[in-house]
Amino acid sequence: MSSPRYSDAERAAIYRVIRERRDMRHFSGGEVAPELLAQLLEAAHQAPSVGLMQPWRFIRITRPALRQQLHSLVEQERLRTAEALGERSAAFMQLKVEGIRDCAELLVAALPEGREAHVFGRRTLPQMDLASLACAIQNLWLAARAEGLGLGWVSLFDPQAVAELLGLPAGAEPVAILCLGPVTAFYDQPMLVEQGWAAPRPLAELVYTDHWGESP
Amino acid sequence: MSSPRYSDAERAAIYRVIRERRDMRHFSGGEVAPELLAQLLEAAHQAPSVGLMQPWRFIRITRPALRQQLHSLVEQERLRTAEALGERSAAFMQLKVEGIRDCAELLVAALPEGREAHVFGRRTLPQMDLASLACAIQNLWLAARAEGLGLGWVSLFDPQAVAELLGLPAGAEPVAILCLGPVTAFYDQPMLVEQGWAAPRPLAELVYTDHWGESP
Repeated sequence: MSSPRYSDAERAAIYRVIRERRDMRHFSGGEVAPELLAQLLEAAHQAPSVGLMQPWRFIRITRPALRQQLHSLVEQERLRTAEALGERSAAFMQLKVEGIRDCAELLVAALPEGREAHVFGRRTLPQMDLASLACAIQNLWLAARAEGLGLGWVSLFDPQAVAELLGLPAGAEPVAILCLGPVTAFYDQPMLVEQGWAAPRPLAELVYTDHWGESP
Repeated sequence: MSSPRYSDAERAAIYRVIRERRDMRHFSGGEVAPELLAQLLEAAHQAPSVGLMQPWRFIRITRPALRQQLHSLVEQERLRTAEALGERSAAFMQLKVEGIRDCAELLVAALPEGREAHVFGRRTLPQMDLASLACAIQNLWLAARAEGLGLGWVSLFDPQAVAELLGLPAGAEPVAILCLGPVTAFYDQPMLVEQGWAAPRPLAELVYTDHWGESP
């Protein structure tokens, strides 16, 4: 494969989308053209996967009743999370944590059944299947941002309840409810930073040399 | 944030890097300039993370003896994996599965200790921390490819042994040995496809509508 380094303009575009991607919870309805949705899912499908197992499955939610049921499940977990947060409960309840009812497209991403057959790269680290699926979702996220579409990854749900709702076979696991679609504006910073929920840490604190905790 | 949709040229660059990124195992030595390495790690650091917990730590391996020890640990697990693969053992042993001794830079990516304090988005799905770290590695992968550098994610190791070698505190977990650096050429297709280890499945088989297993 030729041209090892990309042009300045290409690299700028790639760093731009990495920088401007946001986890969106505010959507403005509308729609995503079927061919564009297919293109975004193809971007996801080009992700790396451990032993080439391609452990991603996407369920597109088209029935309004199903969307409502997913919203209810997330709402239940939102309340349980608030309870578990103790003193931060009130602040948490002020946050918008999902855009399930407002996004143009709703997808559920899941790990498939039968993963135990895949040993390569997973004998000691079986969770690498989830890592592969996360890489696929990151691809989708970046491609969507470049297309001017927001994506939000919702993980506030009981996986067993979502699995039952969507008929997942034993051994399959839902790991993301993905809200996708047009937005009025992308957040300038991560919404949890803008809302004061959390302060980001500088990279320098998270990089060590040769031994945990040792600075370069 | 303005300009919701990127220009045609920008989108082409982003789809290109998503398509051309490869999990590399063949490296050509050389080096990665410190400022470029920092820039790549900043790209990783711009990943989304559940509840903004930023659960990524990177240990840069600079001591040759440590690199050799990591290689030995991977080699041990390679043999154990081959054993576990049974009839595919011989084919597996033919594959090059890592470039630890040949890559310019070696990094270990790990989840930090103290993650139980982060409840937001993790009460029912605690493994979302790994998903966040995987998104960071995918950012790193894409940025490296645009810079003409290969990256390989090695997950063939005993995490406890790597944790002990690098002094990880209780509760922290290594999840990736990352080989990074110049390559002679990028694979045209995933190496495991080129080598006939696995055949990729078409996306259409992995996307359902409203219910597991139902085609659009």
